[in-house]
Amino acid sequence: MTGRRKIFGWGFEGEGFTPPEEEFALATYARLFGVDGFEERAVPGLGEIRLPAPRVAPPASLAAICSAAPHDRALHSFGKSYPDTVHGMLGDYGIAPDVVAYPHDEADIARVIDWAGGQPATITPFGGGSSVVGGVEPALGTKGAKAAVTLDLSRMDRLVEVDPVSRAGRFEGGIFGPALEAALRPHGLTLRHFPQSFEHSTLGGWIATRSAGHYASLRTHIDDFVESLRVVTPRGALETRRLPGSGAGPSPDRLFIGSEGTLGVISEAWIRLTPRPGFRAGSAVWFPDFFAAARGVRAIIQAGLAPANCRILDPDEARNTGAGDGAAALLVLGFEGWDGPLDDLHARALACAADHGGRPAPDLAPAEKWRTAFIRMPYARERMVPRAIIADTFETAVTWDRFEALHATVTKATLAAIRAATGRPGQITCRFTHVYPDGPAPYFSFHALGRHGALLEQWRAIKEAASEALIASGGTITHHHAVGRDHRPWYDRQRPDLFADAFRAAKAALDPASLFNPGVLLDP
Amino acid sequence: MTGRRKIFGWGFEGEGFTPPEEEFALATYARLFGVDGFEERAVPGLGEIRLPAPRVAPPASLAAICSAAPHDRALHSFGKSYPDTVHGMLGDYGIAPDVVAYPHDEADIARVIDWAGGQPATITPFGGGSSVVGGVEPALGTKGAKAAVTLDLSRMDRLVEVDPVSRAGRFEGGIFGPALEAALRPHGLTLRHFPQSFEHSTLGGWIATRSAGHYASLRTHIDDFVESLRVVTPRGALETRRLPGSGAGPSPDRLFIGSEGTLGVISEAWIRLTPRPGFRAGSAVWFPDFFAAARGVRAIIQAGLAPANCRILDPDEARNTGAGDGAAALLVLGFEGWDGPLDDLHARALACAADHGGRPAPDLAPAEKWRTAFIRMPYARERMVPRAIIADTFETAVTWDRFEALHATVTKATLAAIRAATGRPGQITCRFTHVYPDGPAPYFSFHALGRHGALLEQWRAIKEAASEALIASGGTITHHHAVGRDHRPWYDRQRPDLFADAFRAAKAALDPASLFNPGVLLDP
Repeated sequence: MTGRRKIFGWGFEGEGFTPPEEEFALATYARLFGVDGFEERAVPGLGEIRLPAPRVAPPASLAAICSAAPHDRALHSFGKSYPDTVHGMLGDYGIAPDVVAYPHDEADIARVIDWAGGQPATITPFGGGSSVVGGVEPALGTKGAKAAVTLDLSRMDRLVEVDPVSRAGRFEGGIFGPALEAALRPHGLTLRHFPQSFEHSTLGGWIATRSAGHYASLRTHIDDFVESLRVVTPRGALETRRLPGSGAGPSPDRLFIGSEGTLGVISEAWIRLTPRPGFRAGSAVWFPDFFAAARGVRAIIQAGLAPANCRILDPDEARNTGAGDGAAALLVLGFEGWDGPLDDLHARALACAADHGGRPAPDLAPAEKWRTAFIRMPYARERMVPRAIIADTFETAVTWDRFEALHATVTKATLAAIRAATGRPGQITCRFTHVYPDGPAPYFSFHALGRHGALLEQWRAIKEAASEALIASGGTITHHHAVGRDHRPWYDRQRPDLFADAFRAAKAALDPASLFNPGVLLDP
Repeated sequence: MTGRRKIFGWGFEGEGFTPPEEEFALATYARLFGVDGFEERAVPGLGEIRLPAPRVAPPASLAAICSAAPHDRALHSFGKSYPDTVHGMLGDYGIAPDVVAYPHDEADIARVIDWAGGQPATITPFGGGSSVVGGVEPALGTKGAKAAVTLDLSRMDRLVEVDPVSRAGRFEGGIFGPALEAALRPHGLTLRHFPQSFEHSTLGGWIATRSAGHYASLRTHIDDFVESLRVVTPRGALETRRLPGSGAGPSPDRLFIGSEGTLGVISEAWIRLTPRPGFRAGSAVWFPDFFAAARGVRAIIQAGLAPANCRILDPDEARNTGAGDGAAALLVLGFEGWDGPLDDLHARALACAADHGGRPAPDLAPAEKWRTAFIRMPYARERMVPRAIIADTFETAVTWDRFEALHATVTKATLAAIRAATGRPGQITCRFTHVYPDGPAPYFSFHALGRHGALLEQWRAIKEAASEALIASGGTITHHHAVGRDHRPWYDRQRPDLFADAFRAAKAALDPASLFNPGVLLDP
């Protein structure tokens, strides 16, 4: 696990779907699309990729922390979205950054910003590069930049200090999930923020994109864990005050949480921690259908029970992940705690579920199958895109009163778009990732058989139809994947125009030359 | 309770301290200061107040919703802070607004803004007027305004709609606490946000000032209840999307929550609700001293128990409120829930307390005595200021690692300032209002015997010393009283300068002529 991250696909070099995983996925797709097999295209290796010549070169003083090596430039050309993967398969790396800088500290960041500002070159902050929304691709913007620099934070990966009394830790922004947890282990503390990208994403990236973790309720987003942060902007560094709570004006932290690299780089953060939970209780619970399961989790969350895990899978999603047979919806329910047994809370949640037809499975096997499939899922894309399979996910949150209508509208629009774009039926499935007393966070997966040469257009047609349906139905364009450039048209409609004006003005105050991530969240 | 609100003092006309309450307070103060009695000054009635002539008059089209009557102008001259009350006693109403507008809807607000902008006149949003930080006094600012208009939201007081499925309600911003709860009662729902000002403050005011309510943990601030809001700015109205959660860029809601009337007026909000809790459990718990009690509540909150009530009072504060004899610190502990008995949680919290020397009282009587004193406390000021008694409160939040040092520093600095300013010893007491896993929200009360003719300077010297100590010790200048104008010098030091630049730019985008609340949060 100490290898290099892949240029094409998920994870480290040498990792990937096992042959049985690939067979299971292909068999599932063959059955779904009614085909015997798939035409597989080759994916170019690094030696076959044509990169444009760098348009700028760093000065000698920055040479030690900068690279224009093909591997670095290719690795930082894309995130991990569906279109990113298609571009990778096509060897289409024209977007590559001219220079990748690896700062060791804030002074390095400031020097890179100063140099980039003088070219001018735009700056793309890069953590793990796991964006699935077009958040880390270099772009020149419209302000006359002639080059693109990517700022890779991975050398800023330290646990700086721990406050065991307040249970908080100060980390550099470039620390990856596993390193963060490993650094905390000797202190008997944990963050327990486990987005699906956990191994391949960073604390700073989580904060910049409002990442959501494994807690299904209460502490759903990284927002809830941020005690303070440091940001390096083109106008200098700023640090917010470490506070457990405050009522002093609008929260400075909340301006930078979710700023997606448009205001500067999150260089450090103080994060709230806990001991590892010593008590657990949980179940897999079957429901006759997805809406019944939704009513069950609504009852649980509105009873104030706040489970750590409260995911529901519709029957097709349960089948696709090997957790079920497609006849029933699955609730993966779990409580975690530090102070005592959780059996009473667990029993109460099961009672809420039972009121809506939920029957506990004899063991946790279905939940474990789903969990394994969930963790392995990101490895599928690099094997499916070369077969012209279009599989992607999108997610939202919506108030309970609108949820069933949103589900129906989104399902119908996406299936219609799949048929229109590909000429054959596809599939859409849904689960809940997080739940709130006032609404769920539904997460949709769709599957279609595309055509080589048309994958990007086909994907885009489906994505647009789904996004239109989300916004028209009262959802958010993203609950935790972030906005990036892919979600901009719908984000622009969701966000009040006057807020956009205020945010644009705030950006201009911190990044007057619009160097940082032009086109993300805002037009430059 | 349907009378008019007092111009001088707290609450409705005809309300106030009872003679026994006044006797108890005066006896306590006489003992504390070692005096036999107090020289009481008269407070001018409305007929004796000199108001400056209005500098502008509204046009005929706004006449029906505007008033320049002395009662309206005097009522909107001040909040309820210590210096406000001194000014009231002195009949010093030179600051009075020229016009008070009472809009019925957003169109009225827009028309008032348009008219004010043309004068130009500054605009002060006004909910219940319970600010204790200089947040509602009219000011002309430095942009050439020649008059001041106060926008009183109290006519916009409707429950607009209820969503019983998502458990949320849409209210106009000017609704007062009791009316809000009364409107929800037929729906079987409640907000349960009970700041000390509950009867005399509004939903919009709570949002604008990041009010904190009765929940001691989890949902401490109104921030946590806001699902969406509408704001009328000089550039028009905006509405954020109703969502249970979102990861779409920086939160628009969080720009306006805590904006203290500087960006516009909060005209409506969707708020998260619950049924009335059907289950309760609680205790009064005695500790040998305040720091032991603090360790006890730290253990409770870090165990993840999240009590609804978790207030601690130091021995002097317990004595001053009649809850104790001054020999021990008091924890007021309570759990609330909707789904089942809370005895187990309560027992676990008592076990945490016992680990730090906490012994439960035989009944809840001490907690009830404190609660009564807490609710009646705001009526004291109007009776004590005319006796030259300087009594005020300030509050903060700080991480646990710094709490004991902050407490020592603040206590010492405040007592020294009292002695220096008044020539005799005073008292400072402390309680916790809210607790977080990473730190408490300490709330200080101080008591000094001032001198007629010097009260404002004496108060300011003490306030400055206390505020300096808070900021130097790592606290926030306010956990929930807000910033207003009184906290500006320390807020400016607490807030990152670059955030101030960003916020100033955001304000300029929404309020280009700087009409709204100049000097609050930012210089105009």
